[in-house]
Amino acid sequence: MRAEIVSIGTELLLGQIVDANSAYIAEKLADLGIDLYYQMTVGDNQERLQKVLKRSLEHSDIVITTGGLGPTDDDLTREAVAEVMGVDLIKDEKLEEQIRGFFAELEREMTVNNLSQAYLPAGAEPIINSRGTAPGIIIERNGKTVISMPGVPPEMKQMMNKKVIPYLHDKAGSKELIKSKVLRVCGYGESSLETEIKDILDSQTNPTVALLSDKAEVHLRLTAKAGNQKMADNLINQVEAELRERLGDDIFGIDDETMEKVVGDRLREEVLTLAVAESCTGGLIGHRITNVSGSSDYFKQGVVVYSNQAKKDLVQVKEETLSEYGAVSRETACEMAEGVKELADTDLGIAVTGIAGPTGGSEEKPVGLVYMGLADDKKVGSFKFKFHGSRKQIKYLTSQYTLDKLRRYLEGSIVL
Amino acid sequence: MRAEIVSIGTELLLGQIVDANSAYIAEKLADLGIDLYYQMTVGDNQERLQKVLKRSLEHSDIVITTGGLGPTDDDLTREAVAEVMGVDLIKDEKLEEQIRGFFAELEREMTVNNLSQAYLPAGAEPIINSRGTAPGIIIERNGKTVISMPGVPPEMKQMMNKKVIPYLHDKAGSKELIKSKVLRVCGYGESSLETEIKDILDSQTNPTVALLSDKAEVHLRLTAKAGNQKMADNLINQVEAELRERLGDDIFGIDDETMEKVVGDRLREEVLTLAVAESCTGGLIGHRITNVSGSSDYFKQGVVVYSNQAKKDLVQVKEETLSEYGAVSRETACEMAEGVKELADTDLGIAVTGIAGPTGGSEEKPVGLVYMGLADDKKVGSFKFKFHGSRKQIKYLTSQYTLDKLRRYLEGSIVL
Repeated sequence: MRAEIVSIGTELLLGQIVDANSAYIAEKLADLGIDLYYQMTVGDNQERLQKVLKRSLEHSDIVITTGGLGPTDDDLTREAVAEVMGVDLIKDEKLEEQIRGFFAELEREMTVNNLSQAYLPAGAEPIINSRGTAPGIIIERNGKTVISMPGVPPEMKQMMNKKVIPYLHDKAGSKELIKSKVLRVCGYGESSLETEIKDILDSQTNPTVALLSDKAEVHLRLTAKAGNQKMADNLINQVEAELRERLGDDIFGIDDETMEKVVGDRLREEVLTLAVAESCTGGLIGHRITNVSGSSDYFKQGVVVYSNQAKKDLVQVKEETLSEYGAVSRETACEMAEGVKELADTDLGIAVTGIAGPTGGSEEKPVGLVYMGLADDKKVGSFKFKFHGSRKQIKYLTSQYTLDKLRRYLEGSIVL
Repeated sequence: MRAEIVSIGTELLLGQIVDANSAYIAEKLADLGIDLYYQMTVGDNQERLQKVLKRSLEHSDIVITTGGLGPTDDDLTREAVAEVMGVDLIKDEKLEEQIRGFFAELEREMTVNNLSQAYLPAGAEPIINSRGTAPGIIIERNGKTVISMPGVPPEMKQMMNKKVIPYLHDKAGSKELIKSKVLRVCGYGESSLETEIKDILDSQTNPTVALLSDKAEVHLRLTAKAGNQKMADNLINQVEAELRERLGDDIFGIDDETMEKVVGDRLREEVLTLAVAESCTGGLIGHRITNVSGSSDYFKQGVVVYSNQAKKDLVQVKEETLSEYGAVSRETACEMAEGVKELADTDLGIAVTGIAGPTGGSEEKPVGLVYMGLADDKKVGSFKFKFHGSRKQIKYLTSQYTLDKLRRYLEGSIVL
């Protein structure tokens, strides 16, 4: 089965809104094993909308639209779908009643144009909208299906989950399932990773293996097609095992597991507490760690020692250290890590000090130079990084690689 | 002149990434007065990509693509564009040199596949990529133009701003200038703002006024068309004055001025220093403040007092206060603000304590309840917020409204 998504709305073509609906629907279609080869965006123009719908129905069995179901003159979807499917628009009495009732209940004034939302293409089934007035539409005719939903994201998602996904699942019958799994890699760029696993990539069939760059990490997307869940899982597991053998602990997590989530899980497993002393990252590491619900179980305290005075006052960096080695040095990073561990009385302390740029660099200590310290009960170790990019990129890379070093330490592949 | 945008990448059709590039480019095209009637997304499939490009070139003069310019085997754009424009792919010696140089400078190993990025369709002009290895492409042939850029947002934006927009501006040869200015508003949602300025919106002609929702703020985009810069500015200034009269200091900044940038400017002007004590935001406020280059001039120190112990140890919150009022209370927020001001010896201290969720709420103190404290040399004041949304949304809203209160205090519209 082949589907196509059509996003309707001039505001999309003026760049006023980002089309996030398409990605949401596309992911659900992938889960259902329904192929999606094209997505199109068209404006509030009857002629062009019909042209797009007609063409989409030529190469796809199912066309899913979002937008254009509102009550205003710019809302053209009902008419266009009726036209393209070769039927009339008919007023549905029950829908009219529901729309009147919706406004009465909210004690809001209904305007006449809201009644346009009671019209459906003849033979279509309405999709209940529990979050707004515009019902969705499902119409099947001559082997083709058009499903139309509002563009308002919560309304569309409700309809997808309550009606459209079950409908499509039945329609797809017992065809093939498509299953995806993402392996998340830190420590490679996109092309160096491709080179590293080139033989695995070259020999891929089912599952396919795709590389996707993300902020400071690379994702390996394994996608398998099979008759059932178990077979799909087996296919994926095989290639995953090959990749893990090749990449080892450069693979830090799967699917939605952020670096901070993985680090949090490890700290929780080992029953260890953590404190963080940040300079150049300004609070970003603490922010990421605390994005994870329940992080208060292991994260106790952070300090943003943005000035040299703060480094001395809060985490006991020695004046002599700052004078001799400078704020951006292994020595300072180590003292910061030990200092915050002591201050917070935690099992571990990590610290970063560096130059985020764009100003502040020198030949000896360029923009992007960062030192990380890591202190446990027995030792303190340090790591040196050289990052490139904008201020924000350098801050983010620092947070990522710092958390990654901590992860590898917790997993035992780094020893201080 | 008519353009079309083609977004290339299977990850888009699997719903793994949201296509934000199209909206960015669409907005720039609107500014240039270039019509955009369609946008299409297609996967990493040579046949379908060529089909889409051919068809787009049938109904548009300019086709702008993003994606598919990487070094991997899935990157098909160079080949597809050459094929569709009827030319060969030629290796550009200069580009090859640049690519080799890029890796040498980074002291990173270049892999052979990176060299595929030195190939261009014959007759094409490369677009310099100052943030990555893939050059963009501009090719004109038989009255049609194809412009290809990487899918990586910062790389695409760089190319748009440095090369593509000036190129298209010349090409459009338009006598009219289009100028935009954005007023950034904090304190309204999109529809409440629309209601507030409905009369101004209803009477708009030139400039147009568009409302755009952004994270925890709303943007008013004023776009004027005129014969020259001065006339365009006058048109904009008139409507801006009306809006400022209506909205007062709910307008916090213009164009790219983030809340943290505006706050930083005010602190700098008043020669005031700041320290921040964060609980639920985990470091996000410090992170945002330090995103601004030069923030070390006014931002001295932050603490992330994630545990009650840390609140007591670092910023002297009293045990009695925690017992009687709880960690999430006006009293605790005030003590945190005074405590961090004292600790850091700064002119101002701000603090936040709240419940980011999804767990941790109660009937008395629900998820989204946040208190902010603000201490200066004379007084300490507090503010109460009730936010809604996910953990990340509540953290971000807290950071935004906290910085906004500080801004209003610095601008004199709030008195402690």
